[in-house]
Amino acid sequence: MRIIKKVSEMKALCTEIKLKQSGTSKAPAKKSNSIGFVPTMGALHQGHISLIETVKLHSDFIVVSIFVNPLQFGVAEDLNAYPRNIEIDIELLKSIGIDALFIPDTEEIYPEGYNTYIELPNLSNVLCGKSRAGHFRGVCTIVCKLFNIVIPDIAVFGEKDAQQAIIIKKMVADLNLGVKIITIPTVREPDGLAMSSRNVYLSPQERKEATILYQSLQMAKNLITNGERDTRKIKAQMHALISSSQTAKIDYIEIVRKNTLVSLDTLDTLSSELLIAIAVWFGKTRLIDNITVSC
Amino acid sequence: MRIIKKVSEMKALCTEIKLKQSGTSKAPAKKSNSIGFVPTMGALHQGHISLIETVKLHSDFIVVSIFVNPLQFGVAEDLNAYPRNIEIDIELLKSIGIDALFIPDTEEIYPEGYNTYIELPNLSNVLCGKSRAGHFRGVCTIVCKLFNIVIPDIAVFGEKDAQQAIIIKKMVADLNLGVKIITIPTVREPDGLAMSSRNVYLSPQERKEATILYQSLQMAKNLITNGERDTRKIKAQMHALISSSQTAKIDYIEIVRKNTLVSLDTLDTLSSELLIAIAVWFGKTRLIDNITVSC
Repeated sequence: MRIIKKVSEMKALCTEIKLKQSGTSKAPAKKSNSIGFVPTMGALHQGHISLIETVKLHSDFIVVSIFVNPLQFGVAEDLNAYPRNIEIDIELLKSIGIDALFIPDTEEIYPEGYNTYIELPNLSNVLCGKSRAGHFRGVCTIVCKLFNIVIPDIAVFGEKDAQQAIIIKKMVADLNLGVKIITIPTVREPDGLAMSSRNVYLSPQERKEATILYQSLQMAKNLITNGERDTRKIKAQMHALISSSQTAKIDYIEIVRKNTLVSLDTLDTLSSELLIAIAVWFGKTRLIDNITVSC
Repeated sequence: MRIIKKVSEMKALCTEIKLKQSGTSKAPAKKSNSIGFVPTMGALHQGHISLIETVKLHSDFIVVSIFVNPLQFGVAEDLNAYPRNIEIDIELLKSIGIDALFIPDTEEIYPEGYNTYIELPNLSNVLCGKSRAGHFRGVCTIVCKLFNIVIPDIAVFGEKDAQQAIIIKKMVADLNLGVKIITIPTVREPDGLAMSSRNVYLSPQERKEATILYQSLQMAKNLITNGERDTRKIKAQMHALISSSQTAKIDYIEIVRKNTLVSLDTLDTLSSELLIAIAVWFGKTRLIDNITVSC
C-alpha cells in the first residue's frame, strides 16, 4: 500500500494507471486497470470497510483517502474534536489490502488564497443542509477536487449519508465528471444504531438511547406499509417516540421524495421512492439516520 | 472536421484520444495526441482565429466549442440578441483546420433540473462581476463542464477578457483540473478597438467613438510610465477622456493588482503587474478592454 501526501504525486500515479486502461483506440477499455475510490474522513469503522470491500468488487486499483475536510464543518461544529486515528486506520487499510492511501495536509488541499466552491442550491438547503449551512458546499468541493486528483472510474458512498450521496450523484451528472457512483446500505451495530465515527462521542446513556433513531425509522416504515399516507401523523409519532428518550433533542424529522428531497405532506400520488431522514442530538453529539421506503 | 452535438459522443472521442497519449507506464506521455481546446460563443472573429492558431502550436488534436451559455447572461442582458453565425463559423473552422467542433444544444448542457454551480467569490465580485451578477458563476460552471467533457491538456483564452482568464486559471488550480491555460494578447482593429463579437451591435457613430477605450488605456499607461503613482488621478483623466465621447457611459474604470484584482490607490510599493480595466456602454452595447502594465 502506497501512502501519498502530495496532490501532484497522487494525480501522477492515477494518471499512469488510467493510461493503462486501453493502449489503443482499437482496444476499447476492458475495465482492466479501473480505479476505485473511497473518500473518508478516517476514524474507520465497519461501515468504511464495507465501502472498500464493495469498491474492490468493481475495480482493480483501489484508492482510499483520509482527509478531515474543514470546509464541511461549521464554525461551531466538531472539526477539532473529530476523531483521528491515523495509525490505526493505516494498519486496518494494510490488512484489507488497498493500493494507495491519500492523506494530504489541509494546506495541500486548500493552499493560501483558495477560493473555488461548488454549490447545488436546491438539494443543499433542506435536511442536514438546513441545519448545517455550507456543509454540502464543503462536501461537493472536496469530492470534486478528490475526483480530479484520483480520476476514479467508480466511487463508493454509504447510504447513511443519504443526502450526501444524492447530492454527489447530481454533481457528477451535472458537471459531466464521468465517475460511476455506487451506494451501499448503512452498516449497523447489532442493536440497530448506524455506524458512525461520531458514535465514540456518546456517553453510555446516550449510546443506549441512540437506538431510538432506527426504531423510529422502522416504526415509520411500518405505518406506511400498513396504509398511513399522512406524513404529518407519521412524523408526529416519530417525534413522540424519539422524545421519550431523556437525552434526545430532535434537529429534524423529514419525509421527502428521494430523488428531489422535496418534503411531502401526503403519499397518495407517490410513484418514486421515499426517504425518511432524521437528525437528533444526544448531548453534544448530532447523529443522523434514514431509511428508503417504496410505497 | 467532426461536428459533434452530444456530450457523450464528445467525451468518448476525447477519452479515446487521451488514452493514446501513452500506452504503458514505461512510455511516459510524449505530448503526442495532446488535446487542445478553445471554448467560444461563436460569431467568430480574428481574435478567435488567433486563439485557435495558438492552440495548434501547442497540441495535436484541436477541439473548438461553440455554445452561447445562458448561465453567464443576466436577465436584462443580450442573450437573445447575441450574434449567432453558425454556418459561417463552421466554414471558417473548416478552413482553419480543426479536428472537432462541439456545438451542443442548451438542453444537452443544462438538462431539466440542472443545479450545480461553481463560484469564486473573491475574484468574481469586482470589475465585470460587480456589474454583471452571476456572470462568472456562469463562466466557471460552463468552462468546468466543457473541460470535463473535452479533457483538454491545454486551453487558450484571450486577454481581452482579462478577469475571465484570471478566474479560470484560479479555478483550474483550486479544483486540480490539470489543464494548462494559455492566454494570448487582445487582437485589435487597425484603429485599436479590441475585437469582440459585440462590436456588430455598434452604430457607425458608436463604432467611431469606441476607439476612445484603447486610447484611454494607453494614456493611463503613459501616465504611469512618466511617474504618476496616484491611481485616482489616472482614473480621473481616463474618465475625462472617455466622457468626451458623446455616446459613452462609463460602467467602471479600475486599476487593480493583476493576480488578486484588488483595487489600488497608489502604485508606490507595487511589485506585481497592474491591470487597468474598463467597461463602457456605447448606446445599448457594453464593451470592455484592458491593458497590463508593469511598474
